Amino acid sequence: MPIRAFSAELPIWVDEEVAASRADLGTDEGRMRLLNRLAERNVAEGSGGPFSALAVRSGSGEVVAAGVNLVLASGLSSMHAEVVTISITQARLGTWDLGSLDDPLELWVNWRPCAMCYGATLWSGVRGLVVAGDGPELEVLTGFDEGPMREDWAQQFEDRGISVRVGVLTDEAVAVFERYAANPDKVVYNATLTDGS
Amino acid sequence: MPIRAFSAELPIWVDEEVAASRADLGTDEGRMRLLNRLAERNVAEGSGGPFSALAVRSGSGEVVAAGVNLVLASGLSSMHAEVVTISITQARLGTWDLGSLDDPLELWVNWRPCAMCYGATLWSGVRGLVVAGDGPELEVLTGFDEGPMREDWAQQFEDRGISVRVGVLTDEAVAVFERYAANPDKVVYNATLTDGS
Repeated sequence: MPIRAFSAELPIWVDEEVAASRADLGTDEGRMRLLNRLAERNVAEGSGGPFSALAVRSGSGEVVAAGVNLVLASGLSSMHAEVVTISITQARLGTWDLGSLDDPLELWVNWRPCAMCYGATLWSGVRGLVVAGDGPELEVLTGFDEGPMREDWAQQFEDRGISVRVGVLTDEAVAVFERYAANPDKVVYNATLTDGS
Repeated sequence: MPIRAFSAELPIWVDEEVAASRADLGTDEGRMRLLNRLAERNVAEGSGGPFSALAVRSGSGEVVAAGVNLVLASGLSSMHAEVVTISITQARLGTWDLGSLDDPLELWVNWRPCAMCYGATLWSGVRGLVVAGDGPELEVLTGFDEGPMREDWAQQFEDRGISVRVGVLTDEAVAVFERYAANPDKVVYNATLTDGS
């Protein structure tokens, strides 16, 4: 009987890190510090790349879920931090449409989403995106391919009712990528797309 | 203890449909006929939208996995047919990098991928994409939002070693969308992105 299901499981330490940061999560900077800790620990734990996300209620500021990149842990190339966080949030809240909530959600990410997560964010129903930065630093420093993005990606979000904010603790996020770049044990898991690459 | 995992399960009838089509899968048209049957049955079964995909070995023609849109069945907005099919294939073959296989894979889909699945296809490592069509018919007829795509989406695939072929049994794929449009019980599950929509 062939395999008919797939799954991803959030490591237990993710919610432990959220709980340990609780007093710091009322501020923009505190949320980004948590994202950077999650991204860096994810590499140390071997689950995936240095990427993390939070789903935060716009009104109350409650963190509904935190997630990390689980490509290596799950063996599935789609399990980027945004897809994981959106999926865990939808599982916890019992709806595939996060836009239907009374207190809408924002997605916080430690850098601009890749081409896939750009669309995943759109379909999730979140009403806002907050990222530490959106420049070429991620690709240049880490070697991860982010894919072809539209130049007007942020405007396309705004046009669909998703607010975009760029630039919270940018230097700290870049520092995580710099330490990743210097790590001799890092795994850059871009798919093999051409013969011999 | 909060939920820490999520999963999607392929309905048992998907592999039954593949088995019933076995004799027809050696041709382009036979594969598209299977995709159209899967898309239409998926709506009748209530699992999700009228969308389906196949992962096919380029050399031998073997169908490694078939998948359908499971947004409604899984409660997860990212579970489009391409993400499901890529994930089941990676689970069956035991690798997140389908580009590392000796007999590379093509992804067959009953229409052009949406903005999210565009990126998911890139990261999967498949070496080819074959679609029934890529025009506005899907959005116009079904009401599903496909998201902002780049004008040069196909060239971007080719530049990364992913061949693109458009236009196998296009009219039959459009007929599936037309029947979906006429179905009074259809659920169009675009996320709620603006107040009151």
